Amino acid sequence: GNSILGEYGVTVFELMSRLAMQHGSINLGQGFPDDNGPEDVRRVAAEALEDRPNQYPPMLGVPELRQAVASHGKRFYDLDVDWQAETMVTSGATESLAACFLALIEPGDEVVCFEPLYDSYLPMIRRAGGVPKLVRLSPPDWKLPEDRLRAAFSDRTKLILLNNPLNPAGKAFSRAELDLIAELVLAHDAYAVCDEVYEHIVFDGLAHIPLITLPGMRDRAVKIGSAGKTFSLTGWKVGYATAAPELLQRIAKAHQFLTFTTPPNLQRAVAYGLEKEASYFAGLAAVMQAKRDRIAEGLVAAGFQPATCQGTYFLNADIRGLGFADGDVAFCEMITKEAGVTAVPVSAFYAGAEAPSNFVRFCFSKQDDILDAASEKLATRF
Amino acid sequence: GNSILGEYGVTVFELMSRLAMQHGSINLGQGFPDDNGPEDVRRVAAEALEDRPNQYPPMLGVPELRQAVASHGKRFYDLDVDWQAETMVTSGATESLAACFLALIEPGDEVVCFEPLYDSYLPMIRRAGGVPKLVRLSPPDWKLPEDRLRAAFSDRTKLILLNNPLNPAGKAFSRAELDLIAELVLAHDAYAVCDEVYEHIVFDGLAHIPLITLPGMRDRAVKIGSAGKTFSLTGWKVGYATAAPELLQRIAKAHQFLTFTTPPNLQRAVAYGLEKEASYFAGLAAVMQAKRDRIAEGLVAAGFQPATCQGTYFLNADIRGLGFADGDVAFCEMITKEAGVTAVPVSAFYAGAEAPSNFVRFCFSKQDDILDAASEKLATRF
Ligand SMILES: CSCCC(=O)C(=O)O
Ligand SMILES: CSCCC(=O)C(=O)O
Repeated sequence: GNSILGEYGVTVFELMSRLAMQHGSINLGQGFPDDNGPEDVRRVAAEALEDRPNQYPPMLGVPELRQAVASHGKRFYDLDVDWQAETMVTSGATESLAACFLALIEPGDEVVCFEPLYDSYLPMIRRAGGVPKLVRLSPPDWKLPEDRLRAAFSDRTKLILLNNPLNPAGKAFSRAELDLIAELVLAHDAYAVCDEVYEHIVFDGLAHIPLITLPGMRDRAVKIGSAGKTFSLTGWKVGYATAAPELLQRIAKAHQFLTFTTPPNLQRAVAYGLEKEASYFAGLAAVMQAKRDRIAEGLVAAGFQPATCQGTYFLNADIRGLGFADGDVAFCEMITKEAGVTAVPVSAFYAGAEAPSNFVRFCFSKQDDILDAASEKLATRF
Repeated sequence: GNSILGEYGVTVFELMSRLAMQHGSINLGQGFPDDNGPEDVRRVAAEALEDRPNQYPPMLGVPELRQAVASHGKRFYDLDVDWQAETMVTSGATESLAACFLALIEPGDEVVCFEPLYDSYLPMIRRAGGVPKLVRLSPPDWKLPEDRLRAAFSDRTKLILLNNPLNPAGKAFSRAELDLIAELVLAHDAYAVCDEVYEHIVFDGLAHIPLITLPGMRDRAVKIGSAGKTFSLTGWKVGYATAAPELLQRIAKAHQFLTFTTPPNLQRAVAYGLEKEASYFAGLAAVMQAKRDRIAEGLVAAGFQPATCQGTYFLNADIRGLGFADGDVAFCEMITKEAGVTAVPVSAFYAGAEAPSNFVRFCFSKQDDILDAASEKLATRF
């Protein structure tokens, strides 16, 4: 039929997780940690569930969490945020993004996106009536092609969607790249929707730079964060958006009709989490960086060639050295069955024609012994 | 601008709750209970948060809850449901509805809706490209006008949205009315999206009849329920949809891009709740019925004339006996300030011209002493 969402299948993460379960393989596909999140944060939530109200919190979120989101912005990025006018809690970053798309995009509006991209972006952009303009980044270096980015903007551009650090590429955008994006957003009177869920998972001493902190971007950028990624609690589905008052109000109008609000006692616990000492956040990045290095070493030993990875949970690896010229989809199925390790094909993150098909994505937010076991299994198979 | 959602304001519930907070009035506006939900259900959630995984559950929900939703259908409505193919958990019924609209409605499709209607319906239907066809029910008897309903269907009808029991009307649709709806849905090859969140809050010995149980409806109706309403935990935002496999799959495609999933440990606790004995569900209806009678008595004593109320949390009352010919909006503001009681104007639930403006809606899912205090305050003012 002519159904807008009908043409999309079940998300690749869900499909690969189902396949992994079916074959009992080590699941390095879907991006989630295999620890259970900070004990203290979970305890705060558990206690609040028993002692605090469980009815509708305010539509924009509980004040504690909105205040914590604002002070997190100040603490990490020297961003002055008015919590009452400029913050909103959503049911995960995915819902924040859906609310931004449904609130800001009108039929025919153009939306600039980078490929590779997270697979909920395009369906929701198109469902909102948007026309995606894709700018392709390619492994292994994920360089931003300035001319292509310039060419993607037009007088019909409504917004750019920036996922930084970029899943699945593991790319942290540089200051120069962000300057270019800001210049184009300003020149085209557009918005920037910034999915920054991996803001605290950046490596090698690089600093995460929120686009909203760049000159001219304060009123145009929406900064989206996630407790799922920052506290290794991906099931909680607690996200938060920061934007200038008028922009936030528009997005809230979509949010109120999508989920209306988010469980108050999970919100309270996330507020507690965001106030943790700097060492918590630095520790998260350090642990993940060590895991990146660990899986990289194992993959190299097995014959893969890892791409650049500056952040996120994900390392992409070239399969050509193993004798697979392309066919990342078949490769991922094959290693699930034959090596007992599941990964996600990188081509699943490209919508345009002739996507790179010789890279697969490994999620490394897993216990060290799991990573080692996966490396061993792959080394044995190849 | 030409923004689809931009023309909608902040939801009337949020506005009235803010006003109530500002004036310290008794809030009988927004629909939520003022107790804190069953202690055992909350304890199950609290324990699961500490002991069970907190990462992404399957996109369709945890098996325990999906199984419980299926057996709930069997137990209460003799409905045979295949939990794996026919159930989905969502972040509240609001998200279920948004997913149905975004999945099923394509630009230009007509959607039949009853007025009065819950205020998230129209914005999301229009945002999905739908053209609402409104069929008006009016207080005090909320009778369904057969000829108008027939006239609202056309060969462009994609679906009917049925909220049964109907918020704010407190109307439980009769078997004859449901037969008519089913006949029209079948005749026009349409779907029915059934918001049945108040399925367990029906009074006077009436039985809730899910449309999906009527002949011909099994493959066309989506039945939506809510833990928020069934367990007095409105903040949890756990909803569930039941539909035939092909239909459910379509809706799941929207769900996966809206929130993807719902906190697993709240899901587990709701699964426990749905397995409670029949007395729990009967008790909920009995308690709410007594509260309806209690507030009705108080409102009559204060000079209001209550409309028919067969279910939900809500009683609507005519203000003409108090000397107010219309102006329910001004009346609600006035009683917030002058009587210290907040209600919601019924006209806020009508989108068409010349809405009834002499009724206000009182939420009675509150402690008895709160209901009594509200009645007294109103009696003192009038
Ligand atoms: C919502 S499932 C996808 C998780 C994720 O972020 C990823 O695997 O990229
Ligand atoms: C999501 S706030 C509205 C609650 C409610 O169901 C109502 O007041 O009608």
